[in-house]
Amino acid sequence: MAPIILILNGPNLNLLGTREPATYGHETLADLSRLCAETAEALGLAIEFRQTNQEAELIDWIHKARGRCAGIVINPAAWTHTSIAIRDALVACELPVIEVHLSNVHKRETFRHHSFVSPIALGVICGLGSGGYRAALQHFSHFVKE
Amino acid sequence: MAPIILILNGPNLNLLGTREPATYGHETLADLSRLCAETAEALGLAIEFRQTNQEAELIDWIHKARGRCAGIVINPAAWTHTSIAIRDALVACELPVIEVHLSNVHKRETFRHHSFVSPIALGVICGLGSGGYRAALQHFSHFVKE
Amino acid sequence: MAPIILILNGPNLNLLGTREPATYGHETLADLSRLCAETAEALGLAIEFRQTNQEAELIDWIHKARGRCAGIVINPAAWTHTSIAIRDALVACELPVIEVHLSNVHKRETFRHHSFVSPIALGVICGLGSGGYRAALQHFSHFVKE
Amino acid sequence: MAPIILILNGPNLNLLGTREPATYGHETLADLSRLCAETAEALGLAIEFRQTNQEAELIDWIHKARGRCAGIVINPAAWTHTSIAIRDALVACELPVIEVHLSNVHKRETFRHHSFVSPIALGVICGLGSGGYRAALQHFSHFVKE
Amino acid sequence: MAPIILILNGPNLNLLGTREPATYGHETLADLSRLCAETAEALGLAIEFRQTNQEAELIDWIHKARGRCAGIVINPAAWTHTSIAIRDALVACELPVIEVHLSNVHKRETFRHHSFVSPIALGVICGLGSGGYRAALQHFSHFVKE
Amino acid sequence: MAPIILILNGPNLNLLGTREPATYGHETLADLSRLCAETAEALGLAIEFRQTNQEAELIDWIHKARGRCAGIVINPAAWTHTSIAIRDALVACELPVIEVHLSNVHKRETFRHHSFVSPIALGVICGLGSGGYRAALQHFSHFVKE
Amino acid sequence: MAPIILILNGPNLNLLGTREPATYGHETLADLSRLCAETAEALGLAIEFRQTNQEAELIDWIHKARGRCAGIVINPAAWTHTSIAIRDALVACELPVIEVHLSNVHKRETFRHHSFVSPIALGVICGLGSGGYRAALQHFSHFVKE
Amino acid sequence: MAPIILILNGPNLNLLGTREPATYGHETLADLSRLCAETAEALGLAIEFRQTNQEAELIDWIHKARGRCAGIVINPAAWTHTSIAIRDALVACELPVIEVHLSNVHKRETFRHHSFVSPIALGVICGLGSGGYRAALQHFSHFVKE
Amino acid sequence: MAPIILILNGPNLNLLGTREPATYGHETLADLSRLCAETAEALGLAIEFRQTNQEAELIDWIHKARGRCAGIVINPAAWTHTSIAIRDALVACELPVIEVHLSNVHKRETFRHHSFVSPIALGVICGLGSGGYRAALQHFSHFVKE
Amino acid sequence: MAPIILILNGPNLNLLGTREPATYGHETLADLSRLCAETAEALGLAIEFRQTNQEAELIDWIHKARGRCAGIVINPAAWTHTSIAIRDALVACELPVIEVHLSNVHKRETFRHHSFVSPIALGVICGLGSGGYRAALQHFSHFVKE
Amino acid sequence: MAPIILILNGPNLNLLGTREPATYGHETLADLSRLCAETAEALGLAIEFRQTNQEAELIDWIHKARGRCAGIVINPAAWTHTSIAIRDALVACELPVIEVHLSNVHKRETFRHHSFVSPIALGVICGLGSGGYRAALQHFSHFVKE
Amino acid sequence: MAPIILILNGPNLNLLGTREPATYGHETLADLSRLCAETAEALGLAIEFRQTNQEAELIDWIHKARGRCAGIVINPAAWTHTSIAIRDALVACELPVIEVHLSNVHKRETFRHHSFVSPIALGVICGLGSGGYRAALQHFSHFVKE
Repeated sequence: MAPIILILNGPNLNLLGTREPATYGHETLADLSRLCAETAEALGLAIEFRQTNQEAELIDWIHKARGRCAGIVINPAAWTHTSIAIRDALVACELPVIEVHLSNVHKRETFRHHSFVSPIALGVICGLGSGGYRAALQHFSHFVKE
Repeated sequence: MAPIILILNGPNLNLLGTREPATYGHETLADLSRLCAETAEALGLAIEFRQTNQEAELIDWIHKARGRCAGIVINPAAWTHTSIAIRDALVACELPVIEVHLSNVHKRETFRHHSFVSPIALGVICGLGSGGYRAALQHFSHFVKE
Repeated sequence: MAPIILILNGPNLNLLGTREPATYGHETLADLSRLCAETAEALGLAIEFRQTNQEAELIDWIHKARGRCAGIVINPAAWTHTSIAIRDALVACELPVIEVHLSNVHKRETFRHHSFVSPIALGVICGLGSGGYRAALQHFSHFVKE
Repeated sequence: MAPIILILNGPNLNLLGTREPATYGHETLADLSRLCAETAEALGLAIEFRQTNQEAELIDWIHKARGRCAGIVINPAAWTHTSIAIRDALVACELPVIEVHLSNVHKRETFRHHSFVSPIALGVICGLGSGGYRAALQHFSHFVKE
Repeated sequence: MAPIILILNGPNLNLLGTREPATYGHETLADLSRLCAETAEALGLAIEFRQTNQEAELIDWIHKARGRCAGIVINPAAWTHTSIAIRDALVACELPVIEVHLSNVHKRETFRHHSFVSPIALGVICGLGSGGYRAALQHFSHFVKE
Repeated sequence: MAPIILILNGPNLNLLGTREPATYGHETLADLSRLCAETAEALGLAIEFRQTNQEAELIDWIHKARGRCAGIVINPAAWTHTSIAIRDALVACELPVIEVHLSNVHKRETFRHHSFVSPIALGVICGLGSGGYRAALQHFSHFVKE
Repeated sequence: MAPIILILNGPNLNLLGTREPATYGHETLADLSRLCAETAEALGLAIEFRQTNQEAELIDWIHKARGRCAGIVINPAAWTHTSIAIRDALVACELPVIEVHLSNVHKRETFRHHSFVSPIALGVICGLGSGGYRAALQHFSHFVKE
Repeated sequence: MAPIILILNGPNLNLLGTREPATYGHETLADLSRLCAETAEALGLAIEFRQTNQEAELIDWIHKARGRCAGIVINPAAWTHTSIAIRDALVACELPVIEVHLSNVHKRETFRHHSFVSPIALGVICGLGSGGYRAALQHFSHFVKE
Repeated sequence: MAPIILILNGPNLNLLGTREPATYGHETLADLSRLCAETAEALGLAIEFRQTNQEAELIDWIHKARGRCAGIVINPAAWTHTSIAIRDALVACELPVIEVHLSNVHKRETFRHHSFVSPIALGVICGLGSGGYRAALQHFSHFVKE
Repeated sequence: MAPIILILNGPNLNLLGTREPATYGHETLADLSRLCAETAEALGLAIEFRQTNQEAELIDWIHKARGRCAGIVINPAAWTHTSIAIRDALVACELPVIEVHLSNVHKRETFRHHSFVSPIALGVICGLGSGGYRAALQHFSHFVKE
Repeated sequence: MAPIILILNGPNLNLLGTREPATYGHETLADLSRLCAETAEALGLAIEFRQTNQEAELIDWIHKARGRCAGIVINPAAWTHTSIAIRDALVACELPVIEVHLSNVHKRETFRHHSFVSPIALGVICGLGSGGYRAALQHFSHFVKE
Repeated sequence: MAPIILILNGPNLNLLGTREPATYGHETLADLSRLCAETAEALGLAIEFRQTNQEAELIDWIHKARGRCAGIVINPAAWTHTSIAIRDALVACELPVIEVHLSNVHKRETFRHHSFVSPIALGVICGLGSGGYRAALQHFSHFVKE
């Protein structure tokens, strides 16, 4: 059976493609989900692709990934900078984590330069748009084989 | 003719594979160069792969890339955190730049958390080892076509 | 049809009138809702008046206001100082926003002096009690006509 | 006799309507004065409307308001961020104070985010243009009756 | 009837005993609940023991404790450092609060050294494992009698 | 023979019960000593209870506890925030340490929020008055048995 | 002829005795002037006692003291913390300066803890009420003789 | 008619040549005025040369320069570091501004290193003594022609 | 019987007159003691004049002054900036305290600008040499009579 | 023989006129060199005009100027903010130094506001484009004669 | 007679060799004393070697060294970072001082990176274990001869 | 064969003896080299003594020392405070490093108080002039034998 990569998207990402296209591009969340599914299939990975505006739901998904998934790709959006609870959940699930941001957070407001997730992640990708998700999946396909 | 991606490596990276393998892995710079060449070929890109311990040489390479290359992948190593001259050179060459770090800099000393390059880069990848270079090339192969 | 102003109240405001009257006064949330309804009617505006202790619900209300309401009056309470997700939702809904606080936050603890909402709001009112809501509605009645 | 509200305007506000209309709008100080007079009359309040570029004059007006006026609406402009003397005068006159700014100061330079007046004011209004003055007068008309 | 002490546990504590035993020990949340129940019974106290990953639920429990419970023992976990809403709810419920942490937060990351709850708590206990809960209950048994 | 717990009290605590009762309560140091003795006896522990205004004497007591006592309960009072020498002595004696404060230091001046002892202690208790000493002894009675 | 000591008082001190007596006492500026005159006479000094709310006037008085007076006693009030121009004037006049504050500024808001005058003064006295002026004059009577 | 350059000098500069010659040199303000007049004449510029210790007067001069003068040379002296009102006036007058300091402010107290004027000026010159004024005029003679 | 003023001197002040005369002058501690005794006698006060290099001794003297002395003049020397224990002792003794420094601490190293004693003192005098002690005694002679 | 002024240009300035004309203008380095040569000749000065991207070369030029040149005009570009080695070299060569920047650095990123060179320079000029070099030479022509 | 070098050791160093050997090595204080004595004899120096946990005793030893000893080697241990009184005593004794630390303090906690002694010492040696004392004596043997 | 100690000197040290003798003394680099050679010979060590103003050259020398030398004595001069590349090279070469400064850097500008090298060095010596090099060699002679 193909290893499962859990792909998690934080608050407001349901608006993708309609909200601030200058910053986030024209792709919708459904486009992004489709891109991930196709990429994963080509790499021999299974994915679960989810979005929520509720922190408790995200934490619950992370808890349940433990021992069941092979890795997590997470775009924590606004929670990147404010949620220690998500960081703690990620540590607790004991899975490799790749943090992804669509935009280059270093070009934006100062409060977006600090991430509670980065120090406990395997790696971080930002500014590559949906390509960041693809790169994360490709990395996991190598990582999982090792 | 294939678009050229310039791949630049900063100080001490000539020691790769022999220095601190716990942090940087066992691959040598030659291994990394080979991986990039193979990846690029498969993507229809040409690469120039270079390393230097001399800031002036790096700046010179960046200047000469202007109007000749399609993008720059740069691992500025220690200069990430101290060189405004490299940042200025990258801005001046008017090429898209992807900043890559082998290790996850957010897990290391505080002074490695700030980058002069990130705010002027297209995107940033860290912690994925040599996979970061591969991801950067793949992103450029999409980016160049658009 | 009258333009709709969405009036949003953040965590703990359900206790209004019973909790810390020295700081927040004796009016209840129902009193406040009634005052807003009466003020809006006199001004030719419709209102939707809501309160929640759940960030996800607030974000959802903001998302759904887009293209349907004419403006948002928000008292984010404690989330003023901690929620980037609400700020991002407000930016995404592309509506004019007036931030209101019952008490004068500048007289209180230092951590209440910074707001993630203020820099993306049209205006901010604090310390005028329920009068702040009335003033925000009056401003929208002028603003909407222009 | 109608209670008197003293309306004070700080430095450079004499240029209103001619200076930086993108930030401050096209209304002149005379327009603003007229708006305040009309609003006050409708509310049963008397006003005294003044502007000065001289801190000593402003302090003197505040001193003389003591025991004679019912409240102060003040737009301290640049002095908001630099004058402790005005703060001390406002405290000394023992009148309720509403601080008003035409623009949303939280969208501007960082040094405009701190106010010496806010912590000793009854309330603060910013970003509502001349509407901020109107709202302040309306609040005083309620406040004075209580 | 025995006075009720509400014992509240924040996010990720449902994983207790399975997550990071080096930091949090081998006791599960059920063990902890049992220990509290036994301790309370011996002291003539009633307890309600709860855990949630949802901030809104925690706030709701705190609101409902008002006038019904005699005190709150709270381990806010990650929310200790980020939630002003919980602090505001605790102030609003007007009950004595003891803040408890299983691990010694002062030995951990810097961001765990600041608590929004501590300045409004009766007391704070950390680093004593489940013994911290027991000590909090014992303190309330004395406190309630006075 | 019963394990010995050394209970150390720092400067000005000799005035307990007479000094600032609003902050520290009406119990004297003798009362506190008696409470500790009774609690210890009930728990099968021996105690040595001491107070000094001289840092060198406190350091000497800590040095001599090494290999002779089973644990230290310390209320370093003002030295909490200023003495690295006491911290170094506590580390050197290689005993488990519980730091206790009668008042909730987080409600007091900012300079009382930092402790040089906390990061090297087993646990910290504050705000529970003399109950903090009792809780520390109870914890040691469990800890020693393990 | 008796040496002249210039006694300067900054903004809002004209309200002395009527403004915030809890902080500043019941003495008026006239009382203070009389006390200084009597003290000076007894010490064989002449004084000039002045108050202004206008910085330019204070600077002018300082300029004119040069070579004519023997020393300056200054209570810069709010300007203590904001005026570099007064500091520069005091340095330029090349006279010994004693800075006096009626209240103990160290007990008040943080922004009152820094003085631009103190580093260029001979000495500083605060918290002794009008006694601070008397002490300054007594010091000058000794100082002038040396 | 020759374009007019307004040359403004801030507080204490009336003492030039007599005050602290080690820092400011032996030239008086009259000398400086003469030098500027001669330089301007040679360059085909008219000048108005003024000094004041009163902020309101300086602001008034700046207001009146609008649409009448071709540029402003300003030595704001102590106000450089404290006056936002002057900055706002300079922005409002919509003229090119060159900020000049006689001494090298970077060699002096830290509080002289920050200028509210520099970020809105065309350029800044310091440390060249009266030569800074001459250089500013020469620059304007080129600038005005373009 | 004359009210007793306790005059306390901190570490290294035993060297007065021999150590760094450029900073502290040529008077010895004995000279200072004599000056205080004479001043006190003329004012109808009794004094106890002491110096110690041992913090515990100073704390002990402060404890014993409670209810026996009418006020404390303290020059805490180096402890001004480091000892919270002395501050706590001064608060506990419930006597009015005047803090005195021979030199103007605001002209010296930055770490000498903060005092733990000032915020709990009645007043502070610095830079007046031995005259500061005299002024403190004179103030107490007035203060005691009121 | 004419006194020699060494004119030094730091990294990336070889791109002048082609790089970011919005910030740096359209003049090339050759244009700038010619302007300096003409200006110098008119003033009776000789110049040596150089640019390098290599810090060691710049340091070497500074070392060799000692005792041979009459002054240095330096535009350190990015090294302004990062190189202590250049500062040390400038101090060591014991020549008067004028620091020049083409753009107004105070309008740019915060990290460009600090210069390691300014505190050891004779003077600093920024924002006047190539006019800054001309002004520096004119100043040296006066300075050298004195 | 051989010049005397006073060798002073601060708090907890009496435990040397038994405490934290990973940090401080296995040598005891007696070993260190012997090493110093042998080194001194070989260099023609006399030593007095002392340790204390009491700051007052250390200060007293420093006072008495004045005019009697030729230099001081001091390992202030924890007091390095907290005692201004020791710094003041060292300045007052007017002897050359070499500060020594057994461990490399720059590898340890941040609070150990600042020393009150270093800025007034002749030199500082850390991380060389007992070799630091030997090096200090060797330096004094050269220094004393000059 | 004698173990080799590599002695490295950073930028501007080629000017030693001629540059700022008040800070660095009258010894030239050649004197220093000779002193090191003599000291080393007496200790049975070989040395290689080098200086460069080019960071890349220094890095290259460090790389080549790996496995060939027994230790490094480095005076990084200005690079101490700015070069992470040198720090990384030193870590990579896996040799013991002693950092030496001729002057006491703690007496100089604040930016000289931080070293990127110290936290990865064996030990640090400053302020002992050329004696610091001698002490470093002596330490290595002991260290190498162990």
